[in-house]
Amino acid sequence: VTVGDLSERELIARIQRQLPPAPAWLTLGIGDDAAVIEPERNHLDVLTVDAVVEGVHFDRRFTPPEAIGHRALAVNLSDLAAMGARPRAALLSMMLPAALPSDDFDAIVTGLMRLAADTPIHVAGGNLTRTPGPLVVDVTVTGTVKRRKVLRRSGASAGDDIYVTGAIGAAAAGLQALQQDAADESLSSCVHRYLYPQPRVRAGLLIGRTRAASACMDLSDGLADGLRQITASSGVGAVVWADQIPVEPPALEWFRRHDQDPVIAAMSGGDDYELLLTASRRARRRIHAAARLAGVPLTRIGSCTAEPALALLTTADGAAHPASFPAGFGHFR
Amino acid sequence: VTVGDLSERELIARIQRQLPPAPAWLTLGIGDDAAVIEPERNHLDVLTVDAVVEGVHFDRRFTPPEAIGHRALAVNLSDLAAMGARPRAALLSMMLPAALPSDDFDAIVTGLMRLAADTPIHVAGGNLTRTPGPLVVDVTVTGTVKRRKVLRRSGASAGDDIYVTGAIGAAAAGLQALQQDAADESLSSCVHRYLYPQPRVRAGLLIGRTRAASACMDLSDGLADGLRQITASSGVGAVVWADQIPVEPPALEWFRRHDQDPVIAAMSGGDDYELLLTASRRARRRIHAAARLAGVPLTRIGSCTAEPALALLTTADGAAHPASFPAGFGHFR
Repeated sequence: VTVGDLSERELIARIQRQLPPAPAWLTLGIGDDAAVIEPERNHLDVLTVDAVVEGVHFDRRFTPPEAIGHRALAVNLSDLAAMGARPRAALLSMMLPAALPSDDFDAIVTGLMRLAADTPIHVAGGNLTRTPGPLVVDVTVTGTVKRRKVLRRSGASAGDDIYVTGAIGAAAAGLQALQQDAADESLSSCVHRYLYPQPRVRAGLLIGRTRAASACMDLSDGLADGLRQITASSGVGAVVWADQIPVEPPALEWFRRHDQDPVIAAMSGGDDYELLLTASRRARRRIHAAARLAGVPLTRIGSCTAEPALALLTTADGAAHPASFPAGFGHFR
Repeated sequence: VTVGDLSERELIARIQRQLPPAPAWLTLGIGDDAAVIEPERNHLDVLTVDAVVEGVHFDRRFTPPEAIGHRALAVNLSDLAAMGARPRAALLSMMLPAALPSDDFDAIVTGLMRLAADTPIHVAGGNLTRTPGPLVVDVTVTGTVKRRKVLRRSGASAGDDIYVTGAIGAAAAGLQALQQDAADESLSSCVHRYLYPQPRVRAGLLIGRTRAASACMDLSDGLADGLRQITASSGVGAVVWADQIPVEPPALEWFRRHDQDPVIAAMSGGDDYELLLTASRRARRRIHAAARLAGVPLTRIGSCTAEPALALLTTADGAAHPASFPAGFGHFR
């Protein structure tokens, strides 16, 4: 059975079967012309949309359908995390090729619903349409944040420290291994990291609450791109120390084995969904405390500068040498 | 120049050039990880998403790019209208083939922005991605409505009157004429109606305010489908009088000339975006007053019945004869 054999109503029923009970604030869920939601008192609404497209953001040859659904929600949750927002409702818009097996459809929904339950966020509505083209899963999410706790991209000042959560490069190494059909045991953590990215929702919330960060964004398109964007939005530059950048060990090993500079490869690779933060020196203690509470590693990798340029410095031979700043990943991805 | 020659940043800049000044409630618009919005006091949030896909919902051979952008927003505004909600923010998610001329990209945005300005609704964010497949414009909209003024699908009772705003069939006739390359002067109003549907936002708001309607939905997939859905949601049936159904005169003429039963063709055709309403007999005066205030015709076409079946009756020869209820349009469109 493929989705082409089923009516829209039957497909919606299949989604509804996987829905958990509705939260109290959901006045009206799937089944009417639109979803209706009770706003959260004294909070702002945060809204974002992000799509995953077959052949652009995933390859069905090595991406299981659960991972497609997971990714479609994760990329959006990562944007909420980067705003310091608590997730609330998701709208699921899918463009379905008629030949998609209905089991795969169910599994895409399962992957999305599993991450939704873990987060939690509630699927409140959506849209299904057929397409003569590739499978698209386009997800809109809403969240809430208190007015003074919004994490913007544009607040970094010269002299602020630059931090990154967790470690980077794993997703890029995992993707390379899958593409080359070379994903052995040593790469399994990287492959899992690529297939099932874990958005830093709790870290974003806790960092937002401390009001310690001056700017924040998520690393959907890699650290090089993130540094470029956060500094451009804030009107500053940055000096980053290559030796300080936390590259996931098996990814570092993979890049070395494949003649890639590990730092450049890790900075250029996308799909990490870590958070990139800036904070004043005075806020060092608070920002580390928030990360500790969230259970995520936090590494200081450089400083913001008044001069609006980006520099990657290496201390390989004891002295600082400017290294070329990687071009970044995913222009118009 | 095609969109494949431009970076995501350049495309976003082209959208921003067409953006009007931000409303006061927009805390953070395009350019960060997500949009941030001030909620409206004492209102509920209404959320919906709907996509238009090339080759499914529009044909680029006869649909100008402005009409694609217009439609992508209009179908969503129609859902807000059907809830009695006031539009606020839109998120614009586009999947762009590399070969799309950048002038067409601009014109799609222009068509959308023009309807947004007329409504008004503000484009607060979105996402751009390339695609190896057809052009997709997926729009999410939010609106607000007071708790007791939500128009649901599920509130119709046996004995309620059934109404439709405006007239139907014009979009279906216009589409047929375009498809057959037969859109002469007499069909120009129908063609325009198909290309630039006008969502009944003001009518939905005013009808919601009077609290006169027991149920409401929009006719995106045609009157036959709408009657089926509103009665199924409400657990009632309906008797509809074929002679009462307001079919747009040039469409009626077109259907006759092409050997189609005008009522069946008009009921089966989609894309009208009129509102289908039910209201108790006691509310007749109030519902007509609301429609008058909104400046839209309102026609009573039948009644809800306790028996959960649909009947289309004709009085062609002076007596009522059951006519077969049309199958409706657009299962899994």
